[in-house]
Amino acid sequence: MHDVILVLDSGSSSLKFAVYEITSGAAPLSRLAHGQVEGLGTHPHFTAFDAEGHEADNSLLPANSSANPHEQAMGTVLAWLQAHRDGTHRLVAAGHRVVHGGRVFASPVRINSEVLLKLDALSSLAPLHQPPALRAIRALQARLPELPQVACFDTAFHRTQPEVAQAYALPRSLSDQGIRRYGFHGLSYQYISQTLPQFLGDKAGGKVVVAHLGNGASMCGMKGQRSMATTMGFTALDGLVMGTRCGNLDPGVVLHLIEQKGLSPAEVSDLLYKRSGLLGVSGLSSDLRELLDSDAPTAQEAIELFVYRAVRELGSLVAALGGLDALVFTAGIGEHSTEIRQRICEQSQWLGIEMDQQANAQHGPRITAADSPVSVWVIPTNEESVIAEAVQQVLVLQR
Amino acid sequence: MHDVILVLDSGSSSLKFAVYEITSGAAPLSRLAHGQVEGLGTHPHFTAFDAEGHEADNSLLPANSSANPHEQAMGTVLAWLQAHRDGTHRLVAAGHRVVHGGRVFASPVRINSEVLLKLDALSSLAPLHQPPALRAIRALQARLPELPQVACFDTAFHRTQPEVAQAYALPRSLSDQGIRRYGFHGLSYQYISQTLPQFLGDKAGGKVVVAHLGNGASMCGMKGQRSMATTMGFTALDGLVMGTRCGNLDPGVVLHLIEQKGLSPAEVSDLLYKRSGLLGVSGLSSDLRELLDSDAPTAQEAIELFVYRAVRELGSLVAALGGLDALVFTAGIGEHSTEIRQRICEQSQWLGIEMDQQANAQHGPRITAADSPVSVWVIPTNEESVIAEAVQQVLVLQR
Repeated sequence: MHDVILVLDSGSSSLKFAVYEITSGAAPLSRLAHGQVEGLGTHPHFTAFDAEGHEADNSLLPANSSANPHEQAMGTVLAWLQAHRDGTHRLVAAGHRVVHGGRVFASPVRINSEVLLKLDALSSLAPLHQPPALRAIRALQARLPELPQVACFDTAFHRTQPEVAQAYALPRSLSDQGIRRYGFHGLSYQYISQTLPQFLGDKAGGKVVVAHLGNGASMCGMKGQRSMATTMGFTALDGLVMGTRCGNLDPGVVLHLIEQKGLSPAEVSDLLYKRSGLLGVSGLSSDLRELLDSDAPTAQEAIELFVYRAVRELGSLVAALGGLDALVFTAGIGEHSTEIRQRICEQSQWLGIEMDQQANAQHGPRITAADSPVSVWVIPTNEESVIAEAVQQVLVLQR
Repeated sequence: MHDVILVLDSGSSSLKFAVYEITSGAAPLSRLAHGQVEGLGTHPHFTAFDAEGHEADNSLLPANSSANPHEQAMGTVLAWLQAHRDGTHRLVAAGHRVVHGGRVFASPVRINSEVLLKLDALSSLAPLHQPPALRAIRALQARLPELPQVACFDTAFHRTQPEVAQAYALPRSLSDQGIRRYGFHGLSYQYISQTLPQFLGDKAGGKVVVAHLGNGASMCGMKGQRSMATTMGFTALDGLVMGTRCGNLDPGVVLHLIEQKGLSPAEVSDLLYKRSGLLGVSGLSSDLRELLDSDAPTAQEAIELFVYRAVRELGSLVAALGGLDALVFTAGIGEHSTEIRQRICEQSQWLGIEMDQQANAQHGPRITAADSPVSVWVIPTNEESVIAEAVQQVLVLQR
């Protein structure tokens, strides 16, 4: 009988899960299965994969009109686990990816009724992204009330930043109400920060910028493996150009769209979160791979803007660190797009980056020449495993 | 009899003026007088100074409740000119500082009815700042219909930027409607760019960042003496921390204030333009000099944030230029605050800046050591003279 941890990442229309076996000592936890329910609230579709990544299930679920599709999806996931794992594995805990920990939660926390109230209160800071995780937590509580659950926060890794990096130049009353720069993708940055010594050796504690370039995208400047600054702020809108999100935008544009163009705040929110970024500029796709394959001038403009803004934000983060020892690319685009890495690095040559094009074509891990003053790396991220490890640590679980 | 040009800078509650004598050849125009009417709409107060800067007039005007206080102020200015200059000087043209030239006006333009209609249309891009200039233009037209008038734009200098630096990652339909990065303080940047060869010699055409640090503040990255990127965007809110303006802010904060905190768009606008920045963070003053003299921790926090954000934006602009040859400080804070220059430069040492503290204490002009890889300068700006020269050039006026 093996003890396992269930890792859950609940979005507005999906519930992703992974099952990790608790291991002894310092050995990394091993993933036994993963999968997701997509299309929550419309046409839910369940897929699951085994430890080797082979498809273990693929089924359309009955179209539902449930008021709480996350509750239904949780039932599907637990039933599948029961059917496939019972007898050999025992579920001992669950860990959730929670977007917003506010100023309260700077590390993973075991969920109890008090914590849950605080997480509810933080929903106003991330009204689009916080509630699905809370629904998943409550759905699991309802079905397995005795199961210990742990919340892991996308914001927590950034709480080491100096105060000045977390501040907006707004009246103090607003920062006291929580309007501050939080930053996100913290579970990914934590994973990368932990793996830095394997790649950088002694330089792991130096000045490192990590570029998490996926459908959501941000960058984090680290010193001593801790976050010193990041491109996202109060919400996940700011900073880099993303698949459908605008990134950096003059706040006056929001006021203009409402006051002069007559858009409602909800329409502006929809515009900036879902219809901007690569999709908005190209008019074609939010997927950088499709744009790279396209001859359309607007596709090329979208890519050019994506690269340019990454180069600008890199300069800004290097200024926060006072120099640069290494740059790390991670997440979908960062791990897989030779061309995007090439273009960002070419335009950042002034920092002391000398590319090794062959290594870059092979996705690294090191993609700079041996004597490049700044080294550049490709390191795959793994947010799930950070959550599983946090659960093990918070609950002091041992094999 | 000398021909003179009247330079006008019309704000929401003030009308500033200067009188420049047209000179022959390449000699710089000389300023014969300047002054302003402050307190428009409340308690107007007129002051004027002669060529040597001695006070030539100082009078409280009747408190007015006119629907058009700019019209009344224009009358005051013209009457004073008439009384003090007639017989020896002849007013041959006027030049106006106009905040927004949109995409239409990339250089100064002689005002006619067609131009005036286009300027009216641009008011929706800068509803707080464009109308006062248009009121001054119309007030002068009403009184001196034959006088040629020229509009000079704060945005024009930035129209040389590459397209990618002027773009937001928004749907194309919005950028086609003019929602783009314009940048401001262009008259100041133009003045500095013209004077660069006097200070930098051959390096004037290199990679230069100019920091215009006044009550409003921005930075501009130049190459070949032309704007390549700037910190302000669609409005004058973005970028650096300012006296009362927030600078860089996550657009999600604006949505949060409206959707979650129940503020109206007008209240948010008032908050971000008038109650944020140094004033908001310190809770004490929008004047950096007062904060530098204060022992209050909040004053120190405001200064620290001002410096930090300048350092970050400098890094971002250097990335846009692909390196840095020189940094120039100008405008009120930039020209006069030894401490702010010192702190920004110390935190930017990584760029290759080695300060000469004595030269900095004496306000330069060069404030770096002779062998500093990057040179840093203090150069006083002069927006009025740029307007006067533009008027002379556009109208082909000669002595």
